[in-house]
Amino acid sequence: MRKPKKERQQLLVETITDNPFVTDEQLAKQFQVSVQTIRLDRMELAIPELRERIKDVASKSYENEVKALPLDEVIGEIIDIELDKRALSIFDVKEEHVFQRNGIARGHHLFAQANSLAVAVIDDELALTVKSTIVFTKPVKSGDRVITKAIVTGQDSAKNRTYVTVSSTVENKEVFHGTFEMYRTRGESK
Amino acid sequence: MRKPKKERQQLLVETITDNPFVTDEQLAKQFQVSVQTIRLDRMELAIPELRERIKDVASKSYENEVKALPLDEVIGEIIDIELDKRALSIFDVKEEHVFQRNGIARGHHLFAQANSLAVAVIDDELALTVKSTIVFTKPVKSGDRVITKAIVTGQDSAKNRTYVTVSSTVENKEVFHGTFEMYRTRGESK
Repeated sequence: MRKPKKERQQLLVETITDNPFVTDEQLAKQFQVSVQTIRLDRMELAIPELRERIKDVASKSYENEVKALPLDEVIGEIIDIELDKRALSIFDVKEEHVFQRNGIARGHHLFAQANSLAVAVIDDELALTVKSTIVFTKPVKSGDRVITKAIVTGQDSAKNRTYVTVSSTVENKEVFHGTFEMYRTRGESK
Repeated sequence: MRKPKKERQQLLVETITDNPFVTDEQLAKQFQVSVQTIRLDRMELAIPELRERIKDVASKSYENEVKALPLDEVIGEIIDIELDKRALSIFDVKEEHVFQRNGIARGHHLFAQANSLAVAVIDDELALTVKSTIVFTKPVKSGDRVITKAIVTGQDSAKNRTYVTVSSTVENKEVFHGTFEMYRTRGESK
């Protein structure tokens, strides 16, 4: 059921505060209005568009937090990170990332996002991938926004290893998951 | 023991015929002469330099042989292929492929070469990666030439699967290996 404008706008603010990465299209669907209506709502409420909201979050700058590689070497945009625990990144799939023939995203781009997040999450100056098992569960297309989550699941300080599991979703559906065995200089996090 | 020039030049021709991808440095080592001597030998014998030899092999053009993707979508240069059996590619690691900090090649480039070769070897219009396990056995540096071999090890026609193992070497030392479970349209090769 469509809600009155005032109520919709209030809920809109709450929804976007909860999840700054929600798209206008998703909001339109949720509130059963047109995308244009959502845009007008956002203008009235002075809520920046998604692209700007993401920049905003990203500009909190994880430059000083990510240790194992410079931030510009991360494939995708890191939007949350807690070293040696978990990290989150966003990657927008564009035409140049898909197979010309079938429009399906090439595996190595999804792997690159996941792998660089597995590197970034390590609280160490050096982190290298030793081994990885990855599964592509659902084709990803151009225009899809891939949200990838890395979680540190274990450490083996004797072997200088950290284990990371990574899961990627598009609109809450899993498209990719993997496990990464990472080598690091120090055996243990402080 | 160093051989007389005539004998060396004869062996040089044989060696290069056997393996067109041998470098002047490797030849110099093999014949215990300087790289400059090898270059002079090649000039006298009118054997083009490695770069030209590779182009020559590549220009045999596998465009009509590779089915599952256009040749320009293959990462690396395919230098030999027998569909549904095996394939070979070369990838020259450059500055843009390595981590700024430690000069080690980023995993996703090695994965991209291996994965696209696993796609290319499939004798089908459509081939997608389902699952992969990969191991990085030795760091690769800028300037390294990675030679990657893909071998089809099995088919499961009921599940439309083809299994491919891939091994990458630099100067005959393994740097990477992996297994790829590929989905294809047709269950079986003709």
